[in-house]
Amino acid sequence: MIIVMKSGSTQEQVEAVERKLRDLGFQTHPIYGEVKTVIGAVGDKRLVKPHSIIHMDGVENIVPIMSPYKLVGRELISEDTIIDVDGVPIGGKELAVMAGPCAVESEEQLMEAAVKIKETGAKILRGGAFKPRTSPYSFQGLEEEGLKLLAQVGKETGLKIVTEVVDTRDVELVSQYADILQIGARSMQNFRLLSECGKADKPVLLKRGLSATIEEWLMAAEYILSAGNPNVILCERGIRTFETATRNTLDINAIPVVKERSHLPIIVDPSHATGNWRWVEAAAKASIAAGADGLMIEVHPDPSSATSDGQQSLKPEKFVELIKALKPIAQAVNRTI
Amino acid sequence: MIIVMKSGSTQEQVEAVERKLRDLGFQTHPIYGEVKTVIGAVGDKRLVKPHSIIHMDGVENIVPIMSPYKLVGRELISEDTIIDVDGVPIGGKELAVMAGPCAVESEEQLMEAAVKIKETGAKILRGGAFKPRTSPYSFQGLEEEGLKLLAQVGKETGLKIVTEVVDTRDVELVSQYADILQIGARSMQNFRLLSECGKADKPVLLKRGLSATIEEWLMAAEYILSAGNPNVILCERGIRTFETATRNTLDINAIPVVKERSHLPIIVDPSHATGNWRWVEAAAKASIAAGADGLMIEVHPDPSSATSDGQQSLKPEKFVELIKALKPIAQAVNRTI
Amino acid sequence: MIIVMKSGSTQEQVEAVERKLRDLGFQTHPIYGEVKTVIGAVGDKRLVKPHSIIHMDGVENIVPIMSPYKLVGRELISEDTIIDVDGVPIGGKELAVMAGPCAVESEEQLMEAAVKIKETGAKILRGGAFKPRTSPYSFQGLEEEGLKLLAQVGKETGLKIVTEVVDTRDVELVSQYADILQIGARSMQNFRLLSECGKADKPVLLKRGLSATIEEWLMAAEYILSAGNPNVILCERGIRTFETATRNTLDINAIPVVKERSHLPIIVDPSHATGNWRWVEAAAKASIAAGADGLMIEVHPDPSSATSDGQQSLKPEKFVELIKALKPIAQAVNRTI
Amino acid sequence: MIIVMKSGSTQEQVEAVERKLRDLGFQTHPIYGEVKTVIGAVGDKRLVKPHSIIHMDGVENIVPIMSPYKLVGRELISEDTIIDVDGVPIGGKELAVMAGPCAVESEEQLMEAAVKIKETGAKILRGGAFKPRTSPYSFQGLEEEGLKLLAQVGKETGLKIVTEVVDTRDVELVSQYADILQIGARSMQNFRLLSECGKADKPVLLKRGLSATIEEWLMAAEYILSAGNPNVILCERGIRTFETATRNTLDINAIPVVKERSHLPIIVDPSHATGNWRWVEAAAKASIAAGADGLMIEVHPDPSSATSDGQQSLKPEKFVELIKALKPIAQAVNRTI
Repeated sequence: MIIVMKSGSTQEQVEAVERKLRDLGFQTHPIYGEVKTVIGAVGDKRLVKPHSIIHMDGVENIVPIMSPYKLVGRELISEDTIIDVDGVPIGGKELAVMAGPCAVESEEQLMEAAVKIKETGAKILRGGAFKPRTSPYSFQGLEEEGLKLLAQVGKETGLKIVTEVVDTRDVELVSQYADILQIGARSMQNFRLLSECGKADKPVLLKRGLSATIEEWLMAAEYILSAGNPNVILCERGIRTFETATRNTLDINAIPVVKERSHLPIIVDPSHATGNWRWVEAAAKASIAAGADGLMIEVHPDPSSATSDGQQSLKPEKFVELIKALKPIAQAVNRTI
Repeated sequence: MIIVMKSGSTQEQVEAVERKLRDLGFQTHPIYGEVKTVIGAVGDKRLVKPHSIIHMDGVENIVPIMSPYKLVGRELISEDTIIDVDGVPIGGKELAVMAGPCAVESEEQLMEAAVKIKETGAKILRGGAFKPRTSPYSFQGLEEEGLKLLAQVGKETGLKIVTEVVDTRDVELVSQYADILQIGARSMQNFRLLSECGKADKPVLLKRGLSATIEEWLMAAEYILSAGNPNVILCERGIRTFETATRNTLDINAIPVVKERSHLPIIVDPSHATGNWRWVEAAAKASIAAGADGLMIEVHPDPSSATSDGQQSLKPEKFVELIKALKPIAQAVNRTI
Repeated sequence: MIIVMKSGSTQEQVEAVERKLRDLGFQTHPIYGEVKTVIGAVGDKRLVKPHSIIHMDGVENIVPIMSPYKLVGRELISEDTIIDVDGVPIGGKELAVMAGPCAVESEEQLMEAAVKIKETGAKILRGGAFKPRTSPYSFQGLEEEGLKLLAQVGKETGLKIVTEVVDTRDVELVSQYADILQIGARSMQNFRLLSECGKADKPVLLKRGLSATIEEWLMAAEYILSAGNPNVILCERGIRTFETATRNTLDINAIPVVKERSHLPIIVDPSHATGNWRWVEAAAKASIAAGADGLMIEVHPDPSSATSDGQQSLKPEKFVELIKALKPIAQAVNRTI
Repeated sequence: MIIVMKSGSTQEQVEAVERKLRDLGFQTHPIYGEVKTVIGAVGDKRLVKPHSIIHMDGVENIVPIMSPYKLVGRELISEDTIIDVDGVPIGGKELAVMAGPCAVESEEQLMEAAVKIKETGAKILRGGAFKPRTSPYSFQGLEEEGLKLLAQVGKETGLKIVTEVVDTRDVELVSQYADILQIGARSMQNFRLLSECGKADKPVLLKRGLSATIEEWLMAAEYILSAGNPNVILCERGIRTFETATRNTLDINAIPVVKERSHLPIIVDPSHATGNWRWVEAAAKASIAAGADGLMIEVHPDPSSATSDGQQSLKPEKFVELIKALKPIAQAVNRTI
């Protein structure tokens, strides 16, 4: 880490900062410029509380050098991680496709979607039993009843199940039914939930928060890994920006950036990232072309009667066409779908 | 709500949408323009699932007319709400001042801060026992031990206690020690936590999420009110923008907007909203001038040794000066501090 | 347009608004809801000054229904426009590739880049002679000298030239040397410059502003078209968001949205949109997969000595590899490159 | 400046970077950490092209230490600058108030506003003769006719005139009529216009760009100062964020940040910063309380007939009340109005 001293800071101030740094276990290397002095501090950033220094007289700013994550970074594990979801790999040559309705509504609805999804070769069924909704007056999900339907349809079709957990109290329950625990965008910094999922024995799909930087997202994954669960799948689902034409802004750049910084697989949710089924195809193609390891897509047999997010859901027949359209793109980047 | 049909939509499509709307309990009023047709739908927006319509042929867009919140809005309760925190009013002529360290670290630290805070006439002590931290390697709070220290110092000084709850499992525990339950920015859309706090018998301080719109924030408050707890204090703490010179951007406009739309009191946290103790005074003055009902400020006896947020904490003597500097501003807007 | 009246507005207020609307040439259709009244106003939005109504007693809000652009929209011209740049089509099956250095520095630099670019089959050479720079102390471009070098290298290689114009006073001069006039992101709302380029007889490449909405961007194009120049190529180059890991956030969603709303071709600049040459390939692939009509890429024979934007420039040999890597993606979406 | 080398960079790579830095005139100070090496480079950042280094093998990142502006910063001039607008000081104890209609429409309109403005003690009249408008179909201003009206009304009332210049070709013309040249938010990075205004002999009011960082804004001011004109007044007018309830987000934090970094005066435009006349008072009070040196406010005798921005304009009688309400706030921060 680098401590930048103010213009006009005194020799005494520089020395006081150096003493403090050495007390904290750092080696110090002051560099005297014409206008400003900076102090290089060598040691493990993760041990330090920078405000113990930022408040000292003459200090202007502190610049961290090391990335704050360890387990999710490429420094310890340089190879790409492939996560094994009960026989289905995520992160390898084959792209992972997760599809299904936003919310589980009934056995019929779920089964109808699942059968079509299965036909395309996709291997993972999504569906929400616990729904985080902006309004308390909106449908909040079928809860355990929904989990049971998911497990049942999963069993009958052979599809793996990914479903969201929104409360620390439900992690055990959801783990009994799901193959992958999903942590939603609004829970990305629910650190207790991250820790609980870190203790679970199921892989975790971690969606990026609406306004989370890539670094914060990787730190959220670090919570899960540091609690003991190495199986985290990152999911880019669009960020919040000033643009109002789309529900969110798909941060396609995040794919190469995450790939460079982390060994974890990353998939994209083009349904939330656009907010409109008409734009899902373009976003899905872009994601695969950019190097995503898979997709999570909302599919509903009757979007116009959906209890949630109908506007961005594909009808099953559109989903079948989408997967067809994605095949040549996957091939072009040496992947299969 | 208004349904906007696409240019070139057919009469059949318009009629199909009208039928659907009437099935959902709306009265319909089509308006035929030269290029586009729109359909006015009269009824309670809160009952409807707009995607049941957005997917219909010929529909371009849906424009809501009614605000989605009911209990927090001015329509049912037009008078400003004054919340009674065990004898301390929030929302009235007297500005509420909440101050204290970001995290509770020890009895000495807390007591030293509390005594100075008490001297200024402030009546509420803040301090985190459960800390949501971006990194799993940062100090996460003293937990129940911290709650006990808070309650003890509260008792000895007569200050009321506000402290954060981060997990649904802790709401009961925190309620035993705290006078106000704080829901932090990262938890603003932890809907389960909102509901649990809605069942608690303590007032709730609801911080605005980092990228929450004012509408989403009021909807989060609606969760608490609709669960039975009418005592919600809103707290603006800065939003996330492109600007990097400051930790967050204090959305000062939110004060008059919230005052116009809601009867709930709103306070400001200038410490988080700026991220730097040097800018806290300007932000605090601005907040009061703009009509805020109070302030929440980080005060630490020794910021340079703080385990969290030392950079934005005021030393107790600076806090004393700040309160002095705020008095004429409060007077200028006909408030007391 | 829809006028939303406040809850509690009186019949007199509604009638006064109706009268005003009729005076402005609208037909009015009031709809009385249980809580609120709205008034549908049928007529041409482009003629109206909504503030003449927004200030009236009882009015809460105005909701526009028609898009504010006419010539760039799909309503009048539904077919995709293909722009002919002196024999090179932009917007058709063949993807347009524009490449070259950020700034023209010397004949050698430009020729070395141009020869490699030509080899890949790309047909358009980019290079800045007038450079808008954040700092007055940075290199501002070779100006007319740079234009002459561009024209000369263009002549020798047969490549078409695209170069930026930053000042209304230079439009004529730049038009003498360039095949395409580029309007940069920082000039997107320099309305005088838009109008001047609208009177020029060269196609215009219009970059999206750093924080321009898609609607504002299309309105900027409307300035050019309405001044008489129908040949506008839109260029998405990343928007400004809270994310700091990348220079900008490539708004990949903008491609399907623009394609839906406008007949104009849209290309992407992955160099500015990422800000780092290592991420250009992923962003370029994504853009083509999403339906972009071409790419604008920074290529410099020696990025480490570039006077501007070296960090995001590809070396010529990397550019050759990139174009190779793009071929299968182009094919997958039925385009050629 | 600090060069951060990648983990695993070699000694040869470090030495190559050092050689390059020394060639560029820097002294180098390498610091070898356990994981990473950084190189301190002592010298004038403003002379360097960091991409000449960023592209070198083994380099991860470059961290600037010096602020990029010189003339606008506090390092050379530590005292607050007070600008003399033909006898009216801006930046001193007396707050500067600039008020008037968004666009000049007629002599009657302007005079009616001016007379009321004069009554309050305000000394500067604003009014647009050249209007930058999002739509080509909106009123673009009376141009020179508008300038003449401004000058005439200014003469008759004794008010100083501030008006916007949008084109380099008009700087001379506008300078003949105006006392202050205004550069609008959309022109903040029109670098040619900045330079032209830097050569003019009138003070310049520089509005902050919609998505300009404080650093970019100060760099824009640096363009004007470095071209020879030291008289720049900064004007915060709200930035673009995700919030849609307000037209812009007033960045109140910018006031203390700019005051800390620059000696130039800063005023606030609460009309644009909120976009709604009902919120102007709160924003204006907050601005003064936070330390702004003045205000620019839209006032129109008949907002409902305004050709531009009527929604955010105050009626003259409301403006009179506003100034009254601001007096005690000004007094509270030891200013006069």
